[in-house]
Amino acid sequence: MLKLYYGLGTCALASHIALEESGADYVAERLDLKANQQNSPDYLAVNPKGRVPALATDKGVITETPAILMYIAQSFPKAKLAPFDDPFTFAQAESFNSYICSGMHIAHAHRMRGRRWASEESSFEDMRRKVPENIRAGFDLIETKMMRGPWVMGEAYSICDPYLFTIAGWAKSDSVDIADFPKVADHYRRMKERPAVQKVLAQYKA
Amino acid sequence: MLKLYYGLGTCALASHIALEESGADYVAERLDLKANQQNSPDYLAVNPKGRVPALATDKGVITETPAILMYIAQSFPKAKLAPFDDPFTFAQAESFNSYICSGMHIAHAHRMRGRRWASEESSFEDMRRKVPENIRAGFDLIETKMMRGPWVMGEAYSICDPYLFTIAGWAKSDSVDIADFPKVADHYRRMKERPAVQKVLAQYKA
Repeated sequence: MLKLYYGLGTCALASHIALEESGADYVAERLDLKANQQNSPDYLAVNPKGRVPALATDKGVITETPAILMYIAQSFPKAKLAPFDDPFTFAQAESFNSYICSGMHIAHAHRMRGRRWASEESSFEDMRRKVPENIRAGFDLIETKMMRGPWVMGEAYSICDPYLFTIAGWAKSDSVDIADFPKVADHYRRMKERPAVQKVLAQYKA
Repeated sequence: MLKLYYGLGTCALASHIALEESGADYVAERLDLKANQQNSPDYLAVNPKGRVPALATDKGVITETPAILMYIAQSFPKAKLAPFDDPFTFAQAESFNSYICSGMHIAHAHRMRGRRWASEESSFEDMRRKVPENIRAGFDLIETKMMRGPWVMGEAYSICDPYLFTIAGWAKSDSVDIADFPKVADHYRRMKERPAVQKVLAQYKA
């Protein structure tokens, strides 16, 4: 059985929703990030990066959200989470997820995780000040150039949608109002109506 | 015909090598990054992100290195650049490339591109000081946990290899000696022996 390791407030939410949408038989184990459980010996044996998410399969562990999302889509094709019939469209979906991962998530991480890339408190403050500008620029690019609508890839719901939903959920904490981006805001509202999303979010509140 | 937009010293090298290995019919156009050509109106019409690489296809433009690499592998299957017969192995390759993209490349970018995430010169200096530590940690993870050998994914050469080669080529500028990582160093040496790599590098020296 698949096992997802996640933490509250992390990008693991995207993989969690995708798993729920996929119909997969899975369990989810929450790590206590405040207690630094992601760096415990037990978890480092699962994922030496000390990060979430990680997806344990019967063949081994998969890390990195774009890879986990792709694995879920390809392993459960009946759920049609990557319903793309040609390499170009598949690459567009991968391009979107890669931008969320290396662009938006990294921009967001400079608010609370500055210690990854610098050492001085003055640098962390400087980084934090720039986060809203970068997050706004990212959502503007998504709104005007990347999102096909109504879902990220057009008419078909895909593994791009829970990832966008995840970072849109962080916008407020980054001092960005997604109401300024109507397509993103409407997408966020429609995502919250999906039973799979509601089921996962209910677990996070428990 | 495919058209790759690239710049010297950038991660576009990975896509360039993959294109050359694939046997694709393509042209490559070099942008003058010192003259900021990536932000010219002509290029922003190709890639509104103002970055390289971008791959123009007859269906549209693909951006983000992991997506371009996957597109090349899937479009030219005879070249066997993603010779993975199951979703798990495919996801492992994608996980590797995603880590290079959002981990190693981002760590490297804090040496010269600190302006993306901060505003003060003191922050840029602080970021630069931390780059060698992060790059070393990344190569250590690749060496000890991620690389199967002799190629990244084991016996089969794949789209992971030119990406590792690209960031290994940056290590010296990041004050890291890849000789400290024997598998990575041996991989780098073997990559330079490949005709496709030699053909691309010759263009970069011209």
